[in-house]
Amino acid sequence: METAGKVIKCKAAVTWQAHEPFSIEEVEVAPPKGHEIRIKMVATGICGSDDHALEGKLKEVTFPIILGHEGVGIVESIGEGVKGFKPGDKVIPLFMPQCCQCVCCKDPRTNICTLPITTGRPRGLMADGTSRFTCKGKQLYHFANTSTFAEYSVIDEIAAAKIDDNAPLDNVCLIGCGFSTGYGSAINTAKVHPGSTCAVFGLGGVGLATVMGCKAAGASRIIGVDINKDKFVKAKELGATECINPKDYDKPIQQVLIEQTGGGLDYVFECIGNTETMVSAINASHFAFGTTVIVGVAPSTKTITIDPMIFLTGRTMKSSLFGGWKSKDSVPKLVTDYMEKKFDLDKLVTHRLPLEKINEGFDLLHKGNSIRTILTF
Amino acid sequence: METAGKVIKCKAAVTWQAHEPFSIEEVEVAPPKGHEIRIKMVATGICGSDDHALEGKLKEVTFPIILGHEGVGIVESIGEGVKGFKPGDKVIPLFMPQCCQCVCCKDPRTNICTLPITTGRPRGLMADGTSRFTCKGKQLYHFANTSTFAEYSVIDEIAAAKIDDNAPLDNVCLIGCGFSTGYGSAINTAKVHPGSTCAVFGLGGVGLATVMGCKAAGASRIIGVDINKDKFVKAKELGATECINPKDYDKPIQQVLIEQTGGGLDYVFECIGNTETMVSAINASHFAFGTTVIVGVAPSTKTITIDPMIFLTGRTMKSSLFGGWKSKDSVPKLVTDYMEKKFDLDKLVTHRLPLEKINEGFDLLHKGNSIRTILTF
Repeated sequence: METAGKVIKCKAAVTWQAHEPFSIEEVEVAPPKGHEIRIKMVATGICGSDDHALEGKLKEVTFPIILGHEGVGIVESIGEGVKGFKPGDKVIPLFMPQCCQCVCCKDPRTNICTLPITTGRPRGLMADGTSRFTCKGKQLYHFANTSTFAEYSVIDEIAAAKIDDNAPLDNVCLIGCGFSTGYGSAINTAKVHPGSTCAVFGLGGVGLATVMGCKAAGASRIIGVDINKDKFVKAKELGATECINPKDYDKPIQQVLIEQTGGGLDYVFECIGNTETMVSAINASHFAFGTTVIVGVAPSTKTITIDPMIFLTGRTMKSSLFGGWKSKDSVPKLVTDYMEKKFDLDKLVTHRLPLEKINEGFDLLHKGNSIRTILTF
Repeated sequence: METAGKVIKCKAAVTWQAHEPFSIEEVEVAPPKGHEIRIKMVATGICGSDDHALEGKLKEVTFPIILGHEGVGIVESIGEGVKGFKPGDKVIPLFMPQCCQCVCCKDPRTNICTLPITTGRPRGLMADGTSRFTCKGKQLYHFANTSTFAEYSVIDEIAAAKIDDNAPLDNVCLIGCGFSTGYGSAINTAKVHPGSTCAVFGLGGVGLATVMGCKAAGASRIIGVDINKDKFVKAKELGATECINPKDYDKPIQQVLIEQTGGGLDYVFECIGNTETMVSAINASHFAFGTTVIVGVAPSTKTITIDPMIFLTGRTMKSSLFGGWKSKDSVPKLVTDYMEKKFDLDKLVTHRLPLEKINEGFDLLHKGNSIRTILTF
């Protein structure tokens, strides 16, 4: 392409400081260096983790920064040594990269790639220790290997998955984070079994994707739990067999769930990132064989206090990032599954806004009025 | 037998109050009622949980009581309706009964029998709500369905396992608790896999049995962790490939273990019941796929405070009672395995004392001078 090798000037939603609204700015995006690709963004979802970052709750975030990590785009140009990508390829950026070479990438038990850790890579910068973004003469930090709130972004080749050339790009960005995180938590992390009972705390985008995962795995009872009953219609549409609102009871929700299921659930998912709900979730799991999966990301400063003896009778607690999927291997397959209508991603998208209206998109999130808002470029 | 149907007067170690030494008393043991058996005790181990009970740390214990739960004996007489036992049978009392009829007994995922819970049975008493023990005109409470610190005890038929007629009775009582708890934690609960790395915190009887389980499961590296280095010789004899003393380092033991294993262990076992060690154990497990098994029983009032995000990269925490063994099914098989020398129980026994010297046995435990002390009758 004619822009290859040149700095591109384009729009991006810049976050200059924590707690500040996004500022739409003209930024300069440098060409990709070795083993990097530059992509033209087509769409990006707004995720709760972006909001955590915005609120300064994630310790690895440095400002000023370009946030966003749930995107889809088209390769504009590639750096030296890049294999497996060419300009024009459709790609989903991977906030969890997969180098396919490190000890963890070679281990089937995990989807964590340790290359960025073992090479001592500084957070928020590319492998050479610099940024590809500048704005008004200032360097901007990258976010989560992706920075999708920009018309163009530079990412590592290990942090991108090439997807089907025929994939529609409207909604597949959700496979880059929210959908896969929830869906995989049920399928890979909990390994929900047919006929089992599940409860999902929090019916946002990730929670609903978890409901979809429980349904796909064959759970016979899927209880959606949320304090916003407006979310119940969609939850039932996507697979919840019933929904309950903790506000409707004058006893703790774990007690309600234990009573309604005769001892607790086979699988409980916490999809909020709230430490109090995590404790409720653990207690709601069956005392003898219940598994709790922590899906939501809690703010860095928060801890949970539990009686270890509640595990003694046989409870399990686990968690995963990105639903346990090895990202580069799985994202293309999930896109194919979506194209084959194995799950209905589109139902998770409630709003579509141009990048310029990003602050409106975050308002919808804060007010609980949206499931997923997709920003378009 | 000539005593059948009659009250038996015999010796027992009675605990009149928490924190008091055992008192050797003459007690009356009533005949077994329906679905109960009366056994003549041959040997009983001294376990850390008896000590917790003695110190008033277990909320389900009511005084005065006859403690002890790791015994072996011979059936003296049986109550009405008892099937599967006859006078003269060798039996191991089961602090975790197995009714074989309740929902949990029929579920392969758990070894918890819910019959005592669903029938609303009062703690420390037999199914009819009364005790079979009296002393000086006072009713004594039963402990953990077993009360083995007595020459005779009455137990439910669902709380006893008939073992091989040819089983030697010197040390098999350890299969009634400590050995099976540790060994099963590695084999059933963690499901240690061949070639894996394990660490065992606490090298008492349960910890050493855990080491034996890790070895039997084929772990390639088994690190024993204890602040008493006198325990290292035996640990190595039983399967530990190395042992470390946290006191030898000026940094937290989890950091030492992470450094020595390149990221943490596949499986970590906490066999102490100390909430601080539990947190160390979780942190020492591999960030991407480590499993921590809580084996030790913490005092009822203690909690652990953890950052839930340490699980997000893929850690798992679980726990079990009695090593996950379904008691009535497994205890006879474990006895057979012992007779076939599949594991060396005898190495766990360091002291043998008559019942009268029970307080001496507990002193040895407190001072860390014994692994397992067996009381004989």
